[in-house]
Amino acid sequence: MIKKLIFFTVILSTQFQLLKAQMPNLERIEPMNWWIGFKDQSLQLLVRGNRIADRTITLNYAGVKLVNVQKVENPNYLFLNLKISSTTKSGTFPILFTKKGEKVISYNYELKSRTNHTAGITNKDFIYLIMPDRFANGDLSNDQIKGMKDKHFSRDSMYYRHGGDLQGIINKLPYLQDLGVTTLWLNPVLENDEYVTSYHGYANTENYQIDRRFGNNALYKKLVDECHKRGMKMIKDLVHNHIGDQHFLFLDPPSKDWFHQWPKYTGTTYKDQTLFDPYASSADKRLMTDGWFDKHMPDVNQQNSLVKKYITQSHIWWIEYAGLDGFRLDTYAYNDRDFMAEWAKAVSAEFPKFTYFGETWVNGTANQVFFTEGNTANQHFDTKLQGVTDFQTYFAINETLNGKFGWTDGVNRLYSVLASDYQYKDPTRNVLFLDNHDTDRFLSKVGEDFNKYKSGIILLLSLRGIPQMYYGTEILMKNFANPDGKVRDDFPGGWNGDKVNKFTATGRNEKENEAYNFVKKLANYRKNNAVLQTGKMMQFVPEKGIYIYFRYNNDKTVMVVMNTNDQVEDLETARFLERIGKHQTLLNIITDQKLPINKLTLPAKTTYIFELQ
Amino acid sequence: MIKKLIFFTVILSTQFQLLKAQMPNLERIEPMNWWIGFKDQSLQLLVRGNRIADRTITLNYAGVKLVNVQKVENPNYLFLNLKISSTTKSGTFPILFTKKGEKVISYNYELKSRTNHTAGITNKDFIYLIMPDRFANGDLSNDQIKGMKDKHFSRDSMYYRHGGDLQGIINKLPYLQDLGVTTLWLNPVLENDEYVTSYHGYANTENYQIDRRFGNNALYKKLVDECHKRGMKMIKDLVHNHIGDQHFLFLDPPSKDWFHQWPKYTGTTYKDQTLFDPYASSADKRLMTDGWFDKHMPDVNQQNSLVKKYITQSHIWWIEYAGLDGFRLDTYAYNDRDFMAEWAKAVSAEFPKFTYFGETWVNGTANQVFFTEGNTANQHFDTKLQGVTDFQTYFAINETLNGKFGWTDGVNRLYSVLASDYQYKDPTRNVLFLDNHDTDRFLSKVGEDFNKYKSGIILLLSLRGIPQMYYGTEILMKNFANPDGKVRDDFPGGWNGDKVNKFTATGRNEKENEAYNFVKKLANYRKNNAVLQTGKMMQFVPEKGIYIYFRYNNDKTVMVVMNTNDQVEDLETARFLERIGKHQTLLNIITDQKLPINKLTLPAKTTYIFELQ
Repeated sequence: MIKKLIFFTVILSTQFQLLKAQMPNLERIEPMNWWIGFKDQSLQLLVRGNRIADRTITLNYAGVKLVNVQKVENPNYLFLNLKISSTTKSGTFPILFTKKGEKVISYNYELKSRTNHTAGITNKDFIYLIMPDRFANGDLSNDQIKGMKDKHFSRDSMYYRHGGDLQGIINKLPYLQDLGVTTLWLNPVLENDEYVTSYHGYANTENYQIDRRFGNNALYKKLVDECHKRGMKMIKDLVHNHIGDQHFLFLDPPSKDWFHQWPKYTGTTYKDQTLFDPYASSADKRLMTDGWFDKHMPDVNQQNSLVKKYITQSHIWWIEYAGLDGFRLDTYAYNDRDFMAEWAKAVSAEFPKFTYFGETWVNGTANQVFFTEGNTANQHFDTKLQGVTDFQTYFAINETLNGKFGWTDGVNRLYSVLASDYQYKDPTRNVLFLDNHDTDRFLSKVGEDFNKYKSGIILLLSLRGIPQMYYGTEILMKNFANPDGKVRDDFPGGWNGDKVNKFTATGRNEKENEAYNFVKKLANYRKNNAVLQTGKMMQFVPEKGIYIYFRYNNDKTVMVVMNTNDQVEDLETARFLERIGKHQTLLNIITDQKLPINKLTLPAKTTYIFELQ
Repeated sequence: MIKKLIFFTVILSTQFQLLKAQMPNLERIEPMNWWIGFKDQSLQLLVRGNRIADRTITLNYAGVKLVNVQKVENPNYLFLNLKISSTTKSGTFPILFTKKGEKVISYNYELKSRTNHTAGITNKDFIYLIMPDRFANGDLSNDQIKGMKDKHFSRDSMYYRHGGDLQGIINKLPYLQDLGVTTLWLNPVLENDEYVTSYHGYANTENYQIDRRFGNNALYKKLVDECHKRGMKMIKDLVHNHIGDQHFLFLDPPSKDWFHQWPKYTGTTYKDQTLFDPYASSADKRLMTDGWFDKHMPDVNQQNSLVKKYITQSHIWWIEYAGLDGFRLDTYAYNDRDFMAEWAKAVSAEFPKFTYFGETWVNGTANQVFFTEGNTANQHFDTKLQGVTDFQTYFAINETLNGKFGWTDGVNRLYSVLASDYQYKDPTRNVLFLDNHDTDRFLSKVGEDFNKYKSGIILLLSLRGIPQMYYGTEILMKNFANPDGKVRDDFPGGWNGDKVNKFTATGRNEKENEAYNFVKKLANYRKNNAVLQTGKMMQFVPEKGIYIYFRYNNDKTVMVVMNTNDQVEDLETARFLERIGKHQTLLNIITDQKLPINKLTLPAKTTYIFELQ
């Protein structure tokens, strides 16, 4: 990629002047390179440069055809439509930009051979979510980058940058592997050259560049490679819906219709219902999808064919470039549904096993199921979305642990949410979680009750779906998400000079070690036993606050027993005969203790997980 | 029908002896007659009599073939399988039962011509639910019937019989017509010759006989005819799932497998989830469907082909005999789903426009939608059930009127439930209600707040679906359903000598008249304006506790405006432009007052319904 402009430090109107004055004749081509062998032979290059539209384009490479050159309102952009035939060989060729009386500009475009053959993320995996700025600082030299807009660097403020980075994560891979994690999901790591709260990553200002405060593209690729060496995988967090307001595409847009424009700032209603409501008004539908998610996050027009191609190509680029295994799709519900289905089809066509799941922060099974692939309740449309962040199970787990048992309450909520799985084509592709970067931390949510905490961990790692843990939950990090910065504390020990280092057993106190070892024990059991990954599930009607479910396959049977009551309960197990069969003994997976199977005594508010023997 | 045995007044074991000793050689044939011209040419006669199985059967009638005679465990039963060819003429023929050395028994069987061409119940209708024992006593002579088992007759006890009957309902048809009702739904009126609480009708002891304390079959038919003369319709309440424990089929069953047998009394779990839960255990599934609904209500085995035919024929018989328009299917979820789908197919085949809807008292859209026809979320099965009692909207209306506005609460609950209609094949076939014989009465549910009451009436009569009102709600009857008898008070004035007669304006106090006239005004507007029947619906995202929806067709537009807040609110209407269009004026449908359309002042906790002009 050609050198970028990185000196926007003045207010917006002035920036435009600077931008235009100082932009080189060829500032960038995106994607910067491509690969041979994709099913989709079309490749569209975004070319940006000072009055680049005045230039004539020529190229000459066997199997590559310049189909046409698309001009837009803004003469600083050109879109080159290429066709890469199936017989094209990898290699490099010059693209020439000529203009009478001016020096010819040449860009060496490379076509590489494909290498990514990921098997994707499945219910065999255990995802660990990291907010990169807050996990570990492995490179002090990139904490602050000269010329970048966010000048706020201080670990004393939850809104400032703290210095965590990709090298820090690389350094902690042994820790994560020890814990039993198989997959990392990082909050977005693309450049967020915003003036304020740039740390969270959800307002990207580049689509093809890792933020330099986290590292660079090569280091990101190295992190993925290091994961793969350890049998671990990487999920990239994508934002289709919006970009940061300091993105070059917003500061100097190719055309007015690159974004959804409103006479004055107009936010989305956040009402997912308008997307499926048979009675929704056009006005409300438009507000939901075209309204902005945030004042600093321009809403991208996903009905513009140039926009669609630009976004889709950038994602395919990252899969191949970095060797990714999955995507998490931020603010999924706010996107244009037709585009997202096209996008999914395009990604799956090139990478059939690649995984993507959408953030669908909605209330109600009918609301959530709407967004999922092949859900035929939604009779007229298929989103092609493989999985979602399973907020319904998340809400239900909270109710299970904190609510009072009743006909629809307490653990009956969880029972009922799971029963509603009949509506999904494949509920095992949904992502389970106890907390994430936007929610209360789990330990706080259960009132710092350690038994409830352990119950939650068991649910997370033994229910159907793909479990995801938020960084630090394993060492009892806590706090409520009001405001959200409070649940994004630094992982103690991630910074040189931290008073304690909870990445090590000696740095953790007794209770933290108990929690860590609890997670580790169960996560590693899950990792080594298909029964908790792909085993079938059977649940029994909760009775008197006691809930029992099984995971089972031909080899093994695991029984989870939960007493949600405030008092000790006895449990006869005869009712579960069709799963217990001839088994005689219960092996406590956490403690390795053995018990006879016929009758159990269950302490108050406690969950056990047993392997049947 | 042949004379019945009606003298079971001693304990069960003794009854059996009596039953066997005193049963005539031919006690009954059911159905007692049939019709020509059904698509299904098979007819199965249940024949009951003392050792009837020892007899030989002969019959001779053009177009009627005795295909075979089925014997069962109990020699007091025979099942005759006939084929009625499409060319058979109406008429009467003898069926002969012969046995060597005994007198021949002859039964004259009649085949009639079909007359029922009902158009069914649709969203054009307004259903009024009556508990017949508690509405009006039109015939004192049938209050107590000698020999029937329930000796408890007193209006002082909510569990005793009060004397209401079919003649009482016939007498009050002018009142109901004046109110704007188009359709009656009576709680079951088949014979319930049970020892206790026989008044509610849900434990029938005959399938082909109206309870004599309500009248008789001919009077029931007369009631339906009287309805039809007034342009009104009749819904019969059916119980497929169980019968009363004093039913002859239970006291002297044809075979053991006529009922679900358990080693000791075993109730259903009432857990609908087991029916769709992909993770349900076989044990839980069986408990739900085969467990008994109540100790006095034996659970019928709907996988027995004789049982299936007996039930289905009895219902078809009633449609033809009485000229019915619809069925309400009690305890729908507890039935065998395969049988219910077969049953629905059989009924619809003979009466394509006949309407049936199921009672699905479940929590959650996913739970409710499971039971409905053509709901493709339920990927492997089609219930063929046209509509359900819409408990989700019922719960949501309560939350709207009593809850506090929030992201998922207050009127947002209703908004969200309606948005989830995308899951139904046709949500307009669902039955809306504010209360019924099992729930708290609506006025009590809203804390006797008259504004909330009026809001509920507007919702009931202007939302999509088929509205149903419970008797007395229009005259402000109140009470909570704990126990349920408390919401089954007598309608004041339904009994001679009642101190007040609220069937008349002079008998109602001012507030009761206001309520009555409110319902009457809106029900008659609905009756006369297709816009509230079949008009399209559009709802807008609730904002700050204010909710607006429209019903509209090519001719008219109706706007409902609801302020759920505790204070007066102003409302700008510009947001609703796509429905308001060029309309200038709002006509208040209740008061006939006119208002300019651009800006509205809304009193606290108040709903308006306007026609746009």
